[in-house]
Amino acid sequence: MFEVLFLGTAASAPSVHRGLAAHVIMAKEYRFLLDCGEGTQRQLLRSGIGFRRLNRVLLTHGHLDHILGLGGLLSTLIRWENMESLEIYGGRWALDRVHDLLFGIVLRDEQNNYPIELYELKTGVFFEDKDFTVSAFPVTHRGPGCFGFTFQEKPRRPFLNDKAAALGVPMGPERAKLVRGEPITLTDGRVIHPDDVLGPDLPGARYVHIGDVGRTDNIVQYVRDAHALVIESTYLDAESEMARLFGHMTAAQAARLAVEANVKTLILTHISHRSRERDVLAEARAIFPNTYVARDFDRFVISKEKPVERISPSRDKNRVTTVEANDIDEDE
Amino acid sequence: MFEVLFLGTAASAPSVHRGLAAHVIMAKEYRFLLDCGEGTQRQLLRSGIGFRRLNRVLLTHGHLDHILGLGGLLSTLIRWENMESLEIYGGRWALDRVHDLLFGIVLRDEQNNYPIELYELKTGVFFEDKDFTVSAFPVTHRGPGCFGFTFQEKPRRPFLNDKAAALGVPMGPERAKLVRGEPITLTDGRVIHPDDVLGPDLPGARYVHIGDVGRTDNIVQYVRDAHALVIESTYLDAESEMARLFGHMTAAQAARLAVEANVKTLILTHISHRSRERDVLAEARAIFPNTYVARDFDRFVISKEKPVERISPSRDKNRVTTVEANDIDEDE
Repeated sequence: MFEVLFLGTAASAPSVHRGLAAHVIMAKEYRFLLDCGEGTQRQLLRSGIGFRRLNRVLLTHGHLDHILGLGGLLSTLIRWENMESLEIYGGRWALDRVHDLLFGIVLRDEQNNYPIELYELKTGVFFEDKDFTVSAFPVTHRGPGCFGFTFQEKPRRPFLNDKAAALGVPMGPERAKLVRGEPITLTDGRVIHPDDVLGPDLPGARYVHIGDVGRTDNIVQYVRDAHALVIESTYLDAESEMARLFGHMTAAQAARLAVEANVKTLILTHISHRSRERDVLAEARAIFPNTYVARDFDRFVISKEKPVERISPSRDKNRVTTVEANDIDEDE
Repeated sequence: MFEVLFLGTAASAPSVHRGLAAHVIMAKEYRFLLDCGEGTQRQLLRSGIGFRRLNRVLLTHGHLDHILGLGGLLSTLIRWENMESLEIYGGRWALDRVHDLLFGIVLRDEQNNYPIELYELKTGVFFEDKDFTVSAFPVTHRGPGCFGFTFQEKPRRPFLNDKAAALGVPMGPERAKLVRGEPITLTDGRVIHPDDVLGPDLPGARYVHIGDVGRTDNIVQYVRDAHALVIESTYLDAESEMARLFGHMTAAQAARLAVEANVKTLILTHISHRSRERDVLAEARAIFPNTYVARDFDRFVISKEKPVERISPSRDKNRVTTVEANDIDEDE
């Protein structure tokens, strides 16, 4: 299961209601900060999650609206938060800019002994836990070294309750052992092997996050079968020439990608202050009905068992509701 | 008359309710952005005043919580706002950092032909209009080249209505001429000179704005008789050792300065997330009763004719109220 918290859903410049691009992806006990536009440190406070365990930053690319917040965030982390380490992953172009911002501006007059590590992304897995991986894939936007990210749960073999019961496996720690892949011996001397009670591998949840991007034909393979796809939608189809010029998506293009790649749920972000949210939503839903347009502080829960769950504090204070995409009035 | 709009009233790091240091000083048709902490561009939008005519930036000093917002603000100005020019005034240390942020990070990949001018401050007047001046004076904080600012209306000779009536000067354009210093000739041939109907010079309104500062003994002369003094108040007296160590004010120190310099109204800002607003206010008011603690989006109107007027959208949506400092419940 993954959870994505939107800290900023604006394109290029903030608006009254939308901050600049920033997201927290929660996976088990890990928190990944994905992009860090200006104002991210305050959005983290406003969201209620704060700075704890936020020690990995993934950058889709090096444009200012996705990185400038790292300056203030680092400035606060080194003063207030007992920072233990900060790992920043990005393309070379993004890392160059971030390096100059962090070491040339923020830390210039500081004793430079903070454990900050910059990791240049290549295509493939760059973070692995026993239950999931995070990988990067190249996307086409203005400038080199732009990346999308895939959060992929590892396949798991389901525990077959009926089979276990028929074999007389008791409830409790013996079952946990079998799930971990260890054989057990029953009181009557029979040995039960994991293969006796575990079904074949089932794929885990797959969450794909794409920042600014101007082409979809070369990324379908990375997006395929995602339970949720987050992708920018800076323009409407009426502005497709602008979208092409600046290397961005229209809502319709994003929706067509979702159809082609057999995505389950599409979540649009990077919304321009020129666009009305309902227009973005309508254009995408005409092509791919199960579309959301993210708002600041929205959370989405992504698992393979259930439809994507949206939790919108702005819409309904403190109450958690599962909603079907089509039930939402996006125009309030 | 001057007006100050508080865009950010936090110290060092933002909080849920307070953004980082930034203020707009309005004087006639001019708008001066005084400090520019992270998030200022969005606070400008949220305040409703936006970016128009915001082409002069004054920096109290070069600490990150007072300058980082220039990156995002410039990035937006050059893209969206038909930027005509940007003049930035500060000490050398602040300008060095700002130079690297703006030219090394924000404009690095841009065609570098924006009319951005950096002006190094010295003590004295650096901006003059026919009706007011803006001057800088040195203050003591960590690092070199820290400044306070004085907005001073030029003296004006009051129009003596009784004298003009006795002399038979009619209402209308003739009176405007006399105010401008030009003599007029009445229908009966008499010539009336400005000296006949104008009283002696009266001093104009005086607004003093001090950012981070650790000593008051060397600034009393600059603060004297201010109609309003805005000054930081990062600490309470119980933390005076911390204040001394980091070159900051306590609320009591700020209040004692207001007493010593015969200030009319004291407005405290740069409030730490560790302090309760009511504690800051109580500590200062015990020494200087006419004290306010600024909140984000507060406006204060400063003129020589009336007490300082506070306009607080957060307290009373869209309604303009004049309040006495002691009537405000600061703890809501």
